[in-house]
Amino acid sequence: MTGKPSRRQLFGYAGAAAAGAAVTGGAVALGNSSSDPASAQPAAARTIDPYGDHQPGIAAASPKHAELVALNLLPSTDDQAALGRLLRLWTKDIVALSAGRPALGDTAPELAVANVALTVTVGFGPKVFTLPGLTAKKPRGFSAVPAMSHDRLQPQWSGGDLLLLVGADDPVSVVHAVRRLVADAAPFARPVWRQTGFWNGTGSDGKPVTGRNLFGQVDGSGNPAPGTPEFDSTVWSTDGWLTGGTTLVVRRITMNLDTWDELTRSEQERAVGRTLSNGAPLTGSVEQDDLDLEKRDAEGRLVIAETSHARLSHHSTNDGRRIFRKGLNYVQDTGATRESGLIFLSYQADIVSQFLPLLARLDAADALNEWTTTIGSAVFAIPPGFREDGWLGRTLLT
Amino acid sequence: MTGKPSRRQLFGYAGAAAAGAAVTGGAVALGNSSSDPASAQPAAARTIDPYGDHQPGIAAASPKHAELVALNLLPSTDDQAALGRLLRLWTKDIVALSAGRPALGDTAPELAVANVALTVTVGFGPKVFTLPGLTAKKPRGFSAVPAMSHDRLQPQWSGGDLLLLVGADDPVSVVHAVRRLVADAAPFARPVWRQTGFWNGTGSDGKPVTGRNLFGQVDGSGNPAPGTPEFDSTVWSTDGWLTGGTTLVVRRITMNLDTWDELTRSEQERAVGRTLSNGAPLTGSVEQDDLDLEKRDAEGRLVIAETSHARLSHHSTNDGRRIFRKGLNYVQDTGATRESGLIFLSYQADIVSQFLPLLARLDAADALNEWTTTIGSAVFAIPPGFREDGWLGRTLLT
Ligand code: HEM
Ligand code: HEM
Repeated sequence: MTGKPSRRQLFGYAGAAAAGAAVTGGAVALGNSSSDPASAQPAAARTIDPYGDHQPGIAAASPKHAELVALNLLPSTDDQAALGRLLRLWTKDIVALSAGRPALGDTAPELAVANVALTVTVGFGPKVFTLPGLTAKKPRGFSAVPAMSHDRLQPQWSGGDLLLLVGADDPVSVVHAVRRLVADAAPFARPVWRQTGFWNGTGSDGKPVTGRNLFGQVDGSGNPAPGTPEFDSTVWSTDGWLTGGTTLVVRRITMNLDTWDELTRSEQERAVGRTLSNGAPLTGSVEQDDLDLEKRDAEGRLVIAETSHARLSHHSTNDGRRIFRKGLNYVQDTGATRESGLIFLSYQADIVSQFLPLLARLDAADALNEWTTTIGSAVFAIPPGFREDGWLGRTLLT
Repeated sequence: MTGKPSRRQLFGYAGAAAAGAAVTGGAVALGNSSSDPASAQPAAARTIDPYGDHQPGIAAASPKHAELVALNLLPSTDDQAALGRLLRLWTKDIVALSAGRPALGDTAPELAVANVALTVTVGFGPKVFTLPGLTAKKPRGFSAVPAMSHDRLQPQWSGGDLLLLVGADDPVSVVHAVRRLVADAAPFARPVWRQTGFWNGTGSDGKPVTGRNLFGQVDGSGNPAPGTPEFDSTVWSTDGWLTGGTTLVVRRITMNLDTWDELTRSEQERAVGRTLSNGAPLTGSVEQDDLDLEKRDAEGRLVIAETSHARLSHHSTNDGRRIFRKGLNYVQDTGATRESGLIFLSYQADIVSQFLPLLARLDAADALNEWTTTIGSAVFAIPPGFREDGWLGRTLLT
């Protein structure tokens, strides 16, 4: 975020994010290739344009409610023609659902409501690049994330050939859209996992804020801001058919709230290197202050500790390479017991150079590892957006 | 709803509901004993006063997001003194959390945000009325609902000694409040089940609407409107310590969307006796039209069919007795498979006379039984509200 604090402070994280996609109070919207900050609008009552260079859900502000569904291709979905039929169907669905209109053949058309900022993001898992004619199109190094020493991966939260990520400010709309998209996929693919999450990007005063995870931490401060060149170079691929698209790593990470709660606040703050009250670096006073990774306290200890999450994940310790994170809080109940955590979403142009070294560094030393455990992992190539005369994934299949 | 259509049409269901509790745009609010409709405010950005004659979550508009937690008393919580300690603690928590302030000892105080219409409703299960000195205070006929022929009850969704029902327009706030309330209850009681649901009471134009269940039906039209004498006599008990309180039946009902979707729209509409488009009775044109239960079509068949849900549940077929329903949609995922349904909440002054005959009639003949199955059931006595100098449940314990 070096050099852009004023912009971030002006719009807040969510506001800046909204500026990346065209957001309107009505049903009609402009192409989302515009990044004019003037198009940022209040979070309430809005429609996000489905068309544009990029799938709009990525740069859009975090939705209040989201569902991810991973699907596996049926054996009969064994060529580009079949995949193309599904993608054209989904494209039509997405255009309708984003506007709050029922999709074709919708069995509960009245559940489609407008102005809930609904977005659908579609992705391709590694299996797609084993279909005839697509092996050469596999993005460089695109495959499952290698197992980390702290991972406790469960198959039921991992992998998947296709991804649907539906977000909206209204959970009924999310459930309705997912139901339609999954039903239309039935001849081609079936769900293998579903994850539901939520986020609050609105402060008590109604203004956009970065939002907090279930440890209570401000989470997302270090992100490149949508609409900036830094964001574009971090997120959007410029590689062949994936140009204007990106890659997404999904990690399901449990957070042990009970043992976390046993720490003092200052222990909690040292584990991350930022304050709980406003997310400022321990070397600064406001959220968007730059981290001073050299600063030491009176006893000569580094203020942002050696093993603190903010230090180890900082782009300066990662060859200047960044990722764009969008977490979703989740709770999962099994009878009387509750698991809490974060559905960690990382967007980057290239997994190998941007994400993997960072992940390995955190796995090796991150103080947070004591309270967090990754139990699911999946990767998806996220195709670019589509225009009125196009469809999702066309650059891959043609 | 006979005789009050104009009021319902003016405020909509949610608006009318909001009129029952004092709702303000700021943090300070009036006592909720006022039922002045002028206090109804837009659904966004609001705080619901925790004080009043009644617990405010009951008459308030359905929250976007809610969680129910049933807890069982620990063996050591064996007298009124222990229960009273818990209730006084919860009272303090509720006052803080409703205002968007952290509760005392909050381990994630920054997750408390204001203006999300947070309410907490507390209830007592049958076990409470076995504690020394409380057996005589058991409300008349208050015990678990008898098993119906269509029920397939699962213990993990049934029963419970205490209920917490937390609702808000922001899921993070719900999770945060529940975490605090459950943590404070730890010395006294532990969770036995949790249910999470959601509702959309806002139309595309931002105005309050009745909302729809996952079959796509408008659900709640036939309810008495909060703020009316009909609502008061339906819901509020006038019986001893429970005066100003009520009883709540929680039924977890699965809805088979797949087989429901195989019906034509007119078959779906006949099963209920109301239209899908706007929820109007099949004998009328707008949602709040009275049902004409005698009307026949050209072939002489009853327009609102013999076994239709709206006929069998209509108060005219129930000795004029009513209930106040507040459904919450739910989805529950087990790996790749999804269960969908309704967390059916019924408030009534008296379970025996108002709820049970209705339930038995529906169990015997309701057309909807083909697509719905009750898998959980619980009953709670809901104590009256409290004032600044009081605490929740005081009328029971003193
Ligand atoms: C449950 C697990 C995690 C939690 C609770 C967590 C929490 C946080 C928090 C509180 C911050 C500081 C505020 C901010 O900049 O957003 C942060 C920063 C960051 N985290 Fe995480 N994180 C988790 C997992 C991960 C993982 C798995 C990765 C990547 C592999 C990651 C990468 C980053 C990055 C790149 C930053 C920004 C660093 C910078 O200032 O440039 N985090 N995280
Ligand atoms: C999943 C199960 C259920 C579904 C999908 C459902 C759906 C509906 C619908 C669509 C209506 C018409 C609109 C309205 O007045 O709200 C309705 C009305 C009603 N339902 Fe249900 N319902 C279910 C279960 C129950 C149960 C278990 C009861 C009570 C034991 C009940 C009692 C009523 C009552 C009292 C009315 C209003 C009738 C009137 O006075 O007009 N329902 N329900």
